[in-house]
Amino acid sequence: MDDRHLVEEKLSSEELVKGHFLHAYRDIVRLPNGTTTSREYIVHPGAVMIVPLLEDAEGGVRLVLERQFRYPVGQVMIEFPAGKVDSGEDLQLCAQRELLEETGYTASQWSHAGVLHPVISYSTEFIDIWFARGMTPGQRQLDHGEFLDVFTATPTELLQWCRDGLITDGKTLTAALWLQNFLSGAWLLNWHPAATPGQAG
Amino acid sequence: MDDRHLVEEKLSSEELVKGHFLHAYRDIVRLPNGTTTSREYIVHPGAVMIVPLLEDAEGGVRLVLERQFRYPVGQVMIEFPAGKVDSGEDLQLCAQRELLEETGYTASQWSHAGVLHPVISYSTEFIDIWFARGMTPGQRQLDHGEFLDVFTATPTELLQWCRDGLITDGKTLTAALWLQNFLSGAWLLNWHPAATPGQAG
Repeated sequence: MDDRHLVEEKLSSEELVKGHFLHAYRDIVRLPNGTTTSREYIVHPGAVMIVPLLEDAEGGVRLVLERQFRYPVGQVMIEFPAGKVDSGEDLQLCAQRELLEETGYTASQWSHAGVLHPVISYSTEFIDIWFARGMTPGQRQLDHGEFLDVFTATPTELLQWCRDGLITDGKTLTAALWLQNFLSGAWLLNWHPAATPGQAG
Repeated sequence: MDDRHLVEEKLSSEELVKGHFLHAYRDIVRLPNGTTTSREYIVHPGAVMIVPLLEDAEGGVRLVLERQFRYPVGQVMIEFPAGKVDSGEDLQLCAQRELLEETGYTASQWSHAGVLHPVISYSTEFIDIWFARGMTPGQRQLDHGEFLDVFTATPTELLQWCRDGLITDGKTLTAALWLQNFLSGAWLLNWHPAATPGQAG
């Protein structure tokens, strides 16, 4: 598709602020009509989210979820496990690391579902979406200064909480879309074994 | 629920940067274990998203969508209409204004679906989710320097694009969850007439 009537072109870029966490730039861009404007945005390394499935012998599924206080919104949020990608880190290994660190679970099978861009108007962030199953519980390894509760719920409960406004985290709502369509058979996942460091693509 | 083991308390706050668009703060907070850390975040006025339904006489539905270049992610994105709330603006009036400005459509019936927080780790932003139907086409009124295409698609196409990675905008993926469950009858919407300025709550 010819998108020249939409695309903006970078003319220059300057650092706006580099905090401990937030790193922002202001670029001067040429708009499709030839005029110029500025675009300010956060540079983010990207993140992963994991939808961990606990399957019982009767075919039932429970989900591993977290409750975590999120300071910018001033609320304890219900979320799927997630975390930032380390520099150069393989995305599946990142998903495996974050699941272990935050919940203690190791999963034998993994599937890449998709990707979401949480805030396209002012951040480069992407969140890679992974499903995990074949769970073995273990000891979690929270970062210093990280506080979160781990709990489980059924898919039915999760979807009710999305409907009723108890879940408002955007990435978790997107995971609910994937989960609902995976469980109904409408959307397929390709499962493969867990990766080991040094072997991942 | 007692969340004292999760909640962080503000000790102080300083402005980190005030750009043309981005406005960021750095707060010093007390963690649940009594230690302190800093939290950096964007202050955002909030936004609305509209899921506009074009219903034909046979009960078919088409959706009004947009294609817009999003500079931070460097891509033309497929999205539902959305925009920032003006200071003090009623959220339904904001949704009606944004739908008209970006697409030219006026809707006779509106329903509030829910809210999402797109980026709970570093922004105060919320996005209020509205459904609209009873559409009358008209002339759009784009902001100066705003460039976007308006088009329509079926719900089936939208969901396929979500599954296949053609749609990665987080708010639009959340809208797809609402749309799928509304159309199946699983989630209900309460419709009411369009508001007029001065009469809205």
